[in-house]
Amino acid sequence: MGAKPPLSPLAPASFPDLPHIAGVRFATAQAGVRYKGREDVMLAVLAPGTAMAGAFTRSATRSSAVLDCQRKIGQHSSAGAAILVNSGNANAFTGRHGDASVKAVTDAAAKALNLPETRIFTSSTGVIGEPLPHDRITAKLDELSANLAPDAIDAAARAIMTTDTFAKGSGTTITIDGQNVHIAGIAKGSGMIAPDMATMLVYIFTDAVIDQPVLQSMVTALNRTTFNCITVDSDTSTSDTLLVAATGASGIRVTDESIGFMAGLRQVMLDLAHQVVRDGEGATKFVEVSVTGAASDADAHTHAMAIANSPLVKTAIAGEDPNWGRIVMAIGKSGARADRDTLSIWFGHIRVARDGWVDPDYDEADAALYMKQQELVIHVDLGLGGGTAVVWTCDLTHGYIDINADYRS
Amino acid sequence: MGAKPPLSPLAPASFPDLPHIAGVRFATAQAGVRYKGREDVMLAVLAPGTAMAGAFTRSATRSSAVLDCQRKIGQHSSAGAAILVNSGNANAFTGRHGDASVKAVTDAAAKALNLPETRIFTSSTGVIGEPLPHDRITAKLDELSANLAPDAIDAAARAIMTTDTFAKGSGTTITIDGQNVHIAGIAKGSGMIAPDMATMLVYIFTDAVIDQPVLQSMVTALNRTTFNCITVDSDTSTSDTLLVAATGASGIRVTDESIGFMAGLRQVMLDLAHQVVRDGEGATKFVEVSVTGAASDADAHTHAMAIANSPLVKTAIAGEDPNWGRIVMAIGKSGARADRDTLSIWFGHIRVARDGWVDPDYDEADAALYMKQQELVIHVDLGLGGGTAVVWTCDLTHGYIDINADYRS
Repeated sequence: MGAKPPLSPLAPASFPDLPHIAGVRFATAQAGVRYKGREDVMLAVLAPGTAMAGAFTRSATRSSAVLDCQRKIGQHSSAGAAILVNSGNANAFTGRHGDASVKAVTDAAAKALNLPETRIFTSSTGVIGEPLPHDRITAKLDELSANLAPDAIDAAARAIMTTDTFAKGSGTTITIDGQNVHIAGIAKGSGMIAPDMATMLVYIFTDAVIDQPVLQSMVTALNRTTFNCITVDSDTSTSDTLLVAATGASGIRVTDESIGFMAGLRQVMLDLAHQVVRDGEGATKFVEVSVTGAASDADAHTHAMAIANSPLVKTAIAGEDPNWGRIVMAIGKSGARADRDTLSIWFGHIRVARDGWVDPDYDEADAALYMKQQELVIHVDLGLGGGTAVVWTCDLTHGYIDINADYRS
Repeated sequence: MGAKPPLSPLAPASFPDLPHIAGVRFATAQAGVRYKGREDVMLAVLAPGTAMAGAFTRSATRSSAVLDCQRKIGQHSSAGAAILVNSGNANAFTGRHGDASVKAVTDAAAKALNLPETRIFTSSTGVIGEPLPHDRITAKLDELSANLAPDAIDAAARAIMTTDTFAKGSGTTITIDGQNVHIAGIAKGSGMIAPDMATMLVYIFTDAVIDQPVLQSMVTALNRTTFNCITVDSDTSTSDTLLVAATGASGIRVTDESIGFMAGLRQVMLDLAHQVVRDGEGATKFVEVSVTGAASDADAHTHAMAIANSPLVKTAIAGEDPNWGRIVMAIGKSGARADRDTLSIWFGHIRVARDGWVDPDYDEADAALYMKQQELVIHVDLGLGGGTAVVWTCDLTHGYIDINADYRS
């Protein structure tokens, strides 16, 4: 795998203190799937009545575990549930062998945990194209079951890491009618694929009582403006998985009108999404791209992603160059509606272009100073309509090339 | 502009000997638009009766010169024509000032050359967002007119360069009913934009007699499988322009049934397209991506471009890593139809994956040896239908970051 990359300069100071989520217990183990001397399997066991919702990669070559989760996610059940994740091997592009591995793991977990097989959700992340040594995982199920503990979420966050340079967690507490419900989540991902096929995996837990269809529609809607709005390198993993489990253990009911809960869940999802970008391979700058005045929200998103994915924009940011010409180029190529003569561009508070030409008051020295910041905002107004979007990305540096041009070994 | 990048390792040994094209004369001059001490303006004057055809960037923020060429290209005329190109300033994102500059240049050229203004085609390439000092160009029109020479195409190829590391030319001679017609073309481009807003500009000349609508339909069709099938970094310039001029001076008529002429024109277009990729910023490998077995040709093109544009595929190639997992990833994310279980992948003659899993006979040492070649072929068969596509790209290296993360100065 080459040398371990150094801690991202954009990493948070430490793993956060996460609220306790009643109704979920965690365990980790060293199964030796690929890595030696570290935890590489994570089990989360959820109380009966837990509602499970999810969102998954749209890749046409998605992995067996993703296909299995998608089949199960909408099924009604009052049984408990479990999430079982291994790092080191993605079990992707392993053909029918991959399906057999998923079945072996889910069957064994169902038996060990006394749960229906349809309530076992698995993910795998790591190298692709190699058969998953699933016996090493199933051999650890008794140990995992015996060690389940309510507050081991930080160990769970570490066990699912591959080339991540830091463990990712986020949580919040929401007060509903004077009573608290809690949300805590973990994620992994750093660049969509590194060095072989890393993946974005996200698991979020809450003790709220939520009907599954309500939870699913919240997750689908919030995913659109959080995880679907980040990009490190425009590449998409075959295994991206987001699972949200509502255990109901708080006894406090959340409906689709619980704006406070929605806001809290969005905050946790967005924070985890940002942490994935902050661990982007080789990243030295965290960049928000905000688009307003587009003909539609969809157009705004298309423009924002074109800017955020442009190698020329991302290398200019790495070079601390306020190169607004490359923003114009990215908008032009995006395919969404734009009018050269109504376009305005800001770096932070500095308006660099207005109505299709450089702002007469623009001072490049100001903009160059601004670009030295570690956190940047690029704002584009298209002057066409009311469509808006915000996406997040990082710069493209020599570090990205170092990590990804290394021969796997 | 930073230090001049070294000659691309993929450059041809020398500028080719191009056939003489009767009916076109060239001149170059030092106008000092931005660069000092080198030719930066090129004029090509075409005989009366010349048919002009073209293809242009689809960018929504395209430059004034592109919009002007597009307005003029289909108009019938028996007058002569001229192509006037400057390097150093792209006159892009200059608002209405840009339109005024184009009008000033085309009006002055029409007067100096005694041609209708509708027959003056201009291009500009270089920095963007700065007003074009068009007076410096118009001041050179008398000198340019006085120096027109039939065989100065190589000087023309040099005058339009910006960050290109070599001048690009290609030509061929076709025999039709025992008589020769000739094609010669020049191009510039190296990465879509560098360091500010470089551009792909292509000018091709032939002495064949061709009706304008026939020439235009040939150019449109051939563009689809040549210039529209190359990518350096997925970024698109606001100024990309291809002009093809048929002077008719040979007296030999070409129709839409002249397969030989079509093949010759395609050869010149493809050769110039390949030369642009070979001058890709930081490129050390020339890569052909061939897709077969797709549900349609459009799907095949989508898959091929997803592979050719993937930063992870391109960094793996730079690292000489036969990382077929990244090919699977790119296919999965492309949005076109794919079936994991019918997918096969080859590096050159080496089949690495078959029917959705690694080929049982695959020997990674063979593939690693293959990847050391300077010219590579990646072949994907989707096993779904008869759709095919071929595209060309280069690797993504530290050199690309060096060139594009440099602050402009």
